[in-house]
Amino acid sequence: MTDRTCLSVVLAAGEGTRMKSAKPKVLHDIAGLSMVGHVLNAVAGAGGTAAAVVVGPGRDDVAAEARRLVPAATIHVQTERLGTAHAVLHAETELAKGYDDVIIAFGDTPLVRPETFGRLRQAVAAGAAVVALGFEAADPTGYGRLVIDQGELTGIVEHKDASLAEQLITLCNGGLMALAGAHALALLKQVGNGNAKGEYYLTDVVALARAAGLPTAVVVAPEEEVRGVNDRVQLAEVEAIAQGRLRAAAMRAGVTMTAPDTVFLSFDTVIGQDVVLEPHVVFGPGVSIDSDVSIRAYSHLAGCHVASGAVIGPFARIRPKSRIGEKVHIGNFVEVNRSVLAPKVEANHLAYLGDTTVGEGTNIGAGTITCNFDGADKHPTVIGRDVFVGSNSTLIAPLTIGDEVLIAAGSTITQNVEAGALAFGRPRQATIPERGAEKIRANKTRRAERKARGG
Amino acid sequence: MTDRTCLSVVLAAGEGTRMKSAKPKVLHDIAGLSMVGHVLNAVAGAGGTAAAVVVGPGRDDVAAEARRLVPAATIHVQTERLGTAHAVLHAETELAKGYDDVIIAFGDTPLVRPETFGRLRQAVAAGAAVVALGFEAADPTGYGRLVIDQGELTGIVEHKDASLAEQLITLCNGGLMALAGAHALALLKQVGNGNAKGEYYLTDVVALARAAGLPTAVVVAPEEEVRGVNDRVQLAEVEAIAQGRLRAAAMRAGVTMTAPDTVFLSFDTVIGQDVVLEPHVVFGPGVSIDSDVSIRAYSHLAGCHVASGAVIGPFARIRPKSRIGEKVHIGNFVEVNRSVLAPKVEANHLAYLGDTTVGEGTNIGAGTITCNFDGADKHPTVIGRDVFVGSNSTLIAPLTIGDEVLIAAGSTITQNVEAGALAFGRPRQATIPERGAEKIRANKTRRAERKARGG
Amino acid sequence: MTDRTCLSVVLAAGEGTRMKSAKPKVLHDIAGLSMVGHVLNAVAGAGGTAAAVVVGPGRDDVAAEARRLVPAATIHVQTERLGTAHAVLHAETELAKGYDDVIIAFGDTPLVRPETFGRLRQAVAAGAAVVALGFEAADPTGYGRLVIDQGELTGIVEHKDASLAEQLITLCNGGLMALAGAHALALLKQVGNGNAKGEYYLTDVVALARAAGLPTAVVVAPEEEVRGVNDRVQLAEVEAIAQGRLRAAAMRAGVTMTAPDTVFLSFDTVIGQDVVLEPHVVFGPGVSIDSDVSIRAYSHLAGCHVASGAVIGPFARIRPKSRIGEKVHIGNFVEVNRSVLAPKVEANHLAYLGDTTVGEGTNIGAGTITCNFDGADKHPTVIGRDVFVGSNSTLIAPLTIGDEVLIAAGSTITQNVEAGALAFGRPRQATIPERGAEKIRANKTRRAERKARGG
Repeated sequence: MTDRTCLSVVLAAGEGTRMKSAKPKVLHDIAGLSMVGHVLNAVAGAGGTAAAVVVGPGRDDVAAEARRLVPAATIHVQTERLGTAHAVLHAETELAKGYDDVIIAFGDTPLVRPETFGRLRQAVAAGAAVVALGFEAADPTGYGRLVIDQGELTGIVEHKDASLAEQLITLCNGGLMALAGAHALALLKQVGNGNAKGEYYLTDVVALARAAGLPTAVVVAPEEEVRGVNDRVQLAEVEAIAQGRLRAAAMRAGVTMTAPDTVFLSFDTVIGQDVVLEPHVVFGPGVSIDSDVSIRAYSHLAGCHVASGAVIGPFARIRPKSRIGEKVHIGNFVEVNRSVLAPKVEANHLAYLGDTTVGEGTNIGAGTITCNFDGADKHPTVIGRDVFVGSNSTLIAPLTIGDEVLIAAGSTITQNVEAGALAFGRPRQATIPERGAEKIRANKTRRAERKARGG
Repeated sequence: MTDRTCLSVVLAAGEGTRMKSAKPKVLHDIAGLSMVGHVLNAVAGAGGTAAAVVVGPGRDDVAAEARRLVPAATIHVQTERLGTAHAVLHAETELAKGYDDVIIAFGDTPLVRPETFGRLRQAVAAGAAVVALGFEAADPTGYGRLVIDQGELTGIVEHKDASLAEQLITLCNGGLMALAGAHALALLKQVGNGNAKGEYYLTDVVALARAAGLPTAVVVAPEEEVRGVNDRVQLAEVEAIAQGRLRAAAMRAGVTMTAPDTVFLSFDTVIGQDVVLEPHVVFGPGVSIDSDVSIRAYSHLAGCHVASGAVIGPFARIRPKSRIGEKVHIGNFVEVNRSVLAPKVEANHLAYLGDTTVGEGTNIGAGTITCNFDGADKHPTVIGRDVFVGSNSTLIAPLTIGDEVLIAAGSTITQNVEAGALAFGRPRQATIPERGAEKIRANKTRRAERKARGG
Repeated sequence: MTDRTCLSVVLAAGEGTRMKSAKPKVLHDIAGLSMVGHVLNAVAGAGGTAAAVVVGPGRDDVAAEARRLVPAATIHVQTERLGTAHAVLHAETELAKGYDDVIIAFGDTPLVRPETFGRLRQAVAAGAAVVALGFEAADPTGYGRLVIDQGELTGIVEHKDASLAEQLITLCNGGLMALAGAHALALLKQVGNGNAKGEYYLTDVVALARAAGLPTAVVVAPEEEVRGVNDRVQLAEVEAIAQGRLRAAAMRAGVTMTAPDTVFLSFDTVIGQDVVLEPHVVFGPGVSIDSDVSIRAYSHLAGCHVASGAVIGPFARIRPKSRIGEKVHIGNFVEVNRSVLAPKVEANHLAYLGDTTVGEGTNIGAGTITCNFDGADKHPTVIGRDVFVGSNSTLIAPLTIGDEVLIAAGSTITQNVEAGALAFGRPRQATIPERGAEKIRANKTRRAERKARGG
């Protein structure tokens, strides 16, 4: 396969009106990546590195997403919608370049595995001019049937045109195809629109290939893989399937999930062995976790790396551009944003660390807030090793705190603190005897009066 | 339908002992509303605005809930429990008033749709004196069977009395009924108690109508609609069905739910198009959300309005009487309570805003706390536009902060601040060289000693 | 049953390589307790108080877990793995002691109920020398079949050895057994290894008993009970079954769960009547909750007691060694750790209470932090009754605050406060006119410039 060239034509011009969205259908996310992104990744995974993406008019957003994932992708704007074959032919310039294999994929069918695209290509490599992707339908009603004779695909019959015998066929047309590059353009150009709707159907290439004496074939995939998305109920169903795959793969690789159905992974989440995920954990894109990490309930991570032995949560949020060192503890109601924490740092309760670097063994007290934003810019806080930041401290960036510094609880720190110093910035305590009880009793009376008034 | 009058008799006197609750069964909530509330809303949705509610003795709480939803509802106390017909007859004074249609509904059967009640009424309008609500049972064992002859309901046969042929019938009695108002009282009064249990069965009106030569009919609904609740397992099952309906309706209308099964809506939740709900979101009653809002994971909203373009969460709580303006950002571990936020306000990290009004474009720093309670009363905080409230500030209400004020981080603010001012209330920082390291090393030694002692 | 002695031999030496874990398989948790712990609890629940646990070499961790639950358990190290009968014989010294009943259980089969083990023992008490635990398999493929003749178990036939008639049997071997103590050792010693794998199979004792003219019997349990765990997907499936049992039992006893599938209980969670659990609640081990408590969404509790009438959450965390008094309110983003709260305490917003005792009726303001850790030791905070702790206060332990004290908002309190006093420790507010607006406008300009530069 490696020495064969491959072009993937990805049809992504569908309007998706049933989505009821200002966003084009193929840009809706599944497991943290757009649907068209999944398709581009899957064809790339099958070696289909050259991609031609057919988009609707004015859909620069789809084009941008395609180029983000495949910088060399060519974009082809389909202004009229005259059928799938017509859509594919928008990539004529690319099809004319003589690739060995041509994959035709759909931007709203994001669950096809790379292995399945690979099998389509293998069938082309084995000599087929046209390879359809079929699936055994639990209920074939409404689907086109794949008619097979002696191992070869002899035709695709639409449900409404199917004979009684053909209606009994459960092998249905998944829509995706692979074509031999040598024949692709010729076959596509022969497709006509002499049908009820006046459209150019991609499926017609099967009959055209047969008529030209070219071999055809079928590759069969699970029905799940060819599920398309037309509305947001289906989007949620496809998301659930994608999540199920990601969870099962993680568990089989040695990740414990107490409640897999409550854990949401991204397409690119990487989790090491003997990691325990408690219920209600959400991973945004870009997270990698080493082994022996405990991610406790209600933790939300995105764009970060967590090293071995760390304990995260419950109720922790780790945001992008953060790196959590070995054996770090991040506790409840703690947010870590664009921050790098060396090993054995502890931030166990109610804290915000933004644009902060923390040295090994440092303890961040409960209620600590780094003030990284001055209203215009973000500024860094650099905290050394073995520092003890007392509770409820306010650290105003830019700020550098040396090693082995002790910040007294309740302090507001505005100036750098040299290594080894004790820093404090808090007023003396004062007391007025009996004044507290007076006020508290007066409050009690006022509450009682208000209640009596029905307040 | 609009020119026909309708009385709904809602039976809500059941004790519900299997609920094992001090609360009457019909007051247990489904999707944020009592079961009897769902029934009253559904019959009202079918035009049944006059409601007679039959409650158990001393159940002022049920009466209050009924009147909360239908202020003109009449309440009828059933002291003895002698069967469903006996229960309905407690509303005799109302039945005697000559309504065109009479709906008989059950307070513990909250999933019947308004459309279904409407179809019962249509059958009465079409001439039937008695209309039973039937359902096709997946397993009819135990249910009363509806015997149909030439489109008319000829009888309801209890399972134990059913012939072998009748046992094959899968169309079962859902219990609910509609009666022609002209015949309702006469039929109900004819019901006798000459049966094994000595009870007055509502189902007998079918045979009585037939005997009187009056037409009878059946309306068929999905089995799901007639599910009653007898214990808390069934309560949870009915809740799941109600949630499934609410989620599907939202998704079909253009709301994305990454994980619908982890999102909990209330009966009255309103969500606009292109709103994205991440996993683990909970809506209490009274929430409306405009379009293009992102509600991120672990957000909890109740009694509030969120305007277009806002981003809420993760880990945000918006409490009743709050209004969140356009493009506002509410971030993690932030609580907003009885507060009004103008457009483009940001409160991104660990903050409490209570009884607070915030002007456009104002930034609320991490750790900001409004002190709205003085032990007796709640006081307002009014913050102007384009204010920058520095992190970890304490704002003691009542307090007014003018436009374009800058509050220095770590300040405690007790007095009003005029527009344009810089306000601060924090001590100077002081430092003692080497004292930090001394203490930190001493702590380390103590920790090590404690560990050595096994502490 | 009470006067019969019983030895349980628990096989817990499996390596569990498919778990892909450094931790032995039987120590993986289900509902907050190790799998082997569940088995030991279940056999103890059936009166099997004497336990012999067979562990792999070097598995001190498994031995420790067994002894934690059954201090008198004997530990037997299996170095070679030559089959189940060989494993059981490692407990020969215990088997020789003449118990009436011998239960043979598996450390990776944690769902067998105590009642089921009890039925196995009853069958032994009724005269059987060997009692197999069978289950009706939905799909028997691969399982050993139990061959029954006139109520007696005549043999266990492995799937691969089964005749066509035997393959139709759906009653399958669950693996677990009970033996009459009088015959157990003799039967086990007769088991040979003359089979393809050269292993000593426990199932052979059936044929041996039959050959010796001893009665055999079968006890049938639901298939669910005999589910073993071989990988983490199965671990999650077994967890889901265990959770389903715990939830249903709680609901039937009068607990409302809006969304049972999102609530995670521990094996020992105790919840009173009319407790309402909102969605997304997690219970670690050791929680007991009295009646009429509301546990709101996203609450995480472990090792604590919550008294009647309390309201917890949303977003609350109650940690071990905490006791929450009657009618206490713990609100959002509040952590309570090793703390005792008297009745009617309120801590409604963003707070950390660690090693703290709080008296009746005291109000803990938003943002209050107890500083219980000095870098080496944890220190106590004692707060009296009817105290008002103002918002954003920092309480530095060790600290004692008397009754009816008022702590001014924003204060740092380092010294004890006598009863009735007003204490404060915060700087005066100062203001510089116009300076705020200057800075804010300058910031706006800088932001705009940065944006213009593409920053």
